Amino acid sequence: MNIRIGIFGYGNLGKGIENAIRQNPDMTLVAVFTRRDPKSLTIATEGVTVASADDVLAYKDKIDVMILCGGSATDLPVQTPMLAEHFSVIDSFDTHAKIPQHFAAVNEAAQKGKNTAMISVGWDPGMFSLNRMLSSAILPDGADYTFWGKGVSQGHSDAIRRIQGVVDAKQYTIPIEDALEAVRSGKAPALTTREKHLRECFVVAEDGADTARIEKEIKEMPNYFADYDTVVHFITLDELRRDHSGIPHGGFVIRSGKTGKDLENTHVIEYSLKLDSNPEFTASVIVAYARATARMHREGKVGCFTVFDIPPAYLSPKTSEELMAKLL
Amino acid sequence: MNIRIGIFGYGNLGKGIENAIRQNPDMTLVAVFTRRDPKSLTIATEGVTVASADDVLAYKDKIDVMILCGGSATDLPVQTPMLAEHFSVIDSFDTHAKIPQHFAAVNEAAQKGKNTAMISVGWDPGMFSLNRMLSSAILPDGADYTFWGKGVSQGHSDAIRRIQGVVDAKQYTIPIEDALEAVRSGKAPALTTREKHLRECFVVAEDGADTARIEKEIKEMPNYFADYDTVVHFITLDELRRDHSGIPHGGFVIRSGKTGKDLENTHVIEYSLKLDSNPEFTASVIVAYARATARMHREGKVGCFTVFDIPPAYLSPKTSEELMAKLL
Repeated sequence: MNIRIGIFGYGNLGKGIENAIRQNPDMTLVAVFTRRDPKSLTIATEGVTVASADDVLAYKDKIDVMILCGGSATDLPVQTPMLAEHFSVIDSFDTHAKIPQHFAAVNEAAQKGKNTAMISVGWDPGMFSLNRMLSSAILPDGADYTFWGKGVSQGHSDAIRRIQGVVDAKQYTIPIEDALEAVRSGKAPALTTREKHLRECFVVAEDGADTARIEKEIKEMPNYFADYDTVVHFITLDELRRDHSGIPHGGFVIRSGKTGKDLENTHVIEYSLKLDSNPEFTASVIVAYARATARMHREGKVGCFTVFDIPPAYLSPKTSEELMAKLL
Repeated sequence: MNIRIGIFGYGNLGKGIENAIRQNPDMTLVAVFTRRDPKSLTIATEGVTVASADDVLAYKDKIDVMILCGGSATDLPVQTPMLAEHFSVIDSFDTHAKIPQHFAAVNEAAQKGKNTAMISVGWDPGMFSLNRMLSSAILPDGADYTFWGKGVSQGHSDAIRRIQGVVDAKQYTIPIEDALEAVRSGKAPALTTREKHLRECFVVAEDGADTARIEKEIKEMPNYFADYDTVVHFITLDELRRDHSGIPHGGFVIRSGKTGKDLENTHVIEYSLKLDSNPEFTASVIVAYARATARMHREGKVGCFTVFDIPPAYLSPKTSEELMAKLL
């Protein structure tokens, strides 16, 4: 079976999707949709149409799954419901608190258009959610922990860039090793925000800027930094470009739980990711779930779904027989 | 929804199931079936029937899911198909090479009886299989590694006990740290059997036995030890009972894979388990999948399934709304 894919939005995630499609021979990239002038955009894959986002409905019968690559703040809440009425869609909506309302909007649109939609696919939400869910179902008496990093937080980097006198900045979220070890020991510790993660910032300041004032503003910034131990390094723009141009990320989902007649036995389940490129890994997860979306649509499963709803075999291009013989 | 469970076979796994049911308020243990004289068996849960395996068909309408707790060598190949004709069933069949033929036999019986069956549920096969499958679907260009331990291998312990002059023995399978680190680095090393695991044996010999001969026989035993570096310790029966009475286990499933235009980025996905009690954790996985089996049966899904086929949400007693709000 060949799955025809459309990419809606061509930033880091869209480029990651384009690369991932090349690694999956059962998928074909049909078109990339952009809100920019299509003529201004050169994409990596030869022979693929670049079209205006305004013309997307003309591709209704040419695309099996539309992959939305916009941001969660303003793009996806509008775009995913809009497109779900006309296409089977998948997105990586990651504002955890707003997932139920996004689900409801996408579900209504997908039902109306008799399409299949998946939201919040990636690694968190996504693979981390799946592991939190499975582990808590297996060990009902236990505690869950999610650690992020070491990796670049785009939101925190942006927050630093908004401070007066800052030219550019990169913020790394770093899980604290002692906290990880305490969790892995099965002791189920109560951990404060400060005990779980450290924030390390590399900041380029304007010539003559008051770096002491900038450092103070970073460390005292509410929500972003005030509740954490934060380390600030001032470096040159050349150093920032040379040493901090990547977008690595990762993290850990750990559940420890008890079993036995008197709950005397402890078990620790740990899932971890170490990613050179956050958007490329997110894209790889989305492409596997796009396969599942296409299959479910062919089976007539209409409406909105999450990673909790998808039989794992639907993610793989292998047959059930192959999976059973080789991977079970 | 209340799920009525039967336990077929009351060894370590059956006892683990009994404990796990107590941790899941939506489940009720109806009866334990034994091939021994039921009067000779006292179980941990008060008020639950202990019945003869011969009388199991009398419980046909009283049990939603029968959990089979026999061994994979001779019990399950006969018992699971036999019972799948009359009950929805779940087993932990773990002879990897024979899974396809076991599946076929159980599927035929379940189809005939219009029941729902699941085979090979536990942690390997089971959660490890699920992680191998998901990770290889997400990162198609990559390599898979499974390490077991540190933990007790019942089969290897039994093999040592069959040597002349051995009173008792316990064998630990230990993953080799250097190999784990090489895999975690994303280098995708080619590893021999000897490079992946070490085997450590604690042996109680008869008074006056030739321990040099016993050690040689262990280390040269084909299949079990010859391909590994093996360490043998001779200890007293008291020491064995004091220090080696537990049945811990665990292991690691790691996939490293590449993405990007020129496959220039490396990602590492790791799933690991650290278990105080192998049978109790296996039981906890089975009980969660028994919930899925009951739900699928109520939905009319007939035949044999594996962990690859089950939507993750089916394992949890929580509603989709709760899962979405709290765990996604």
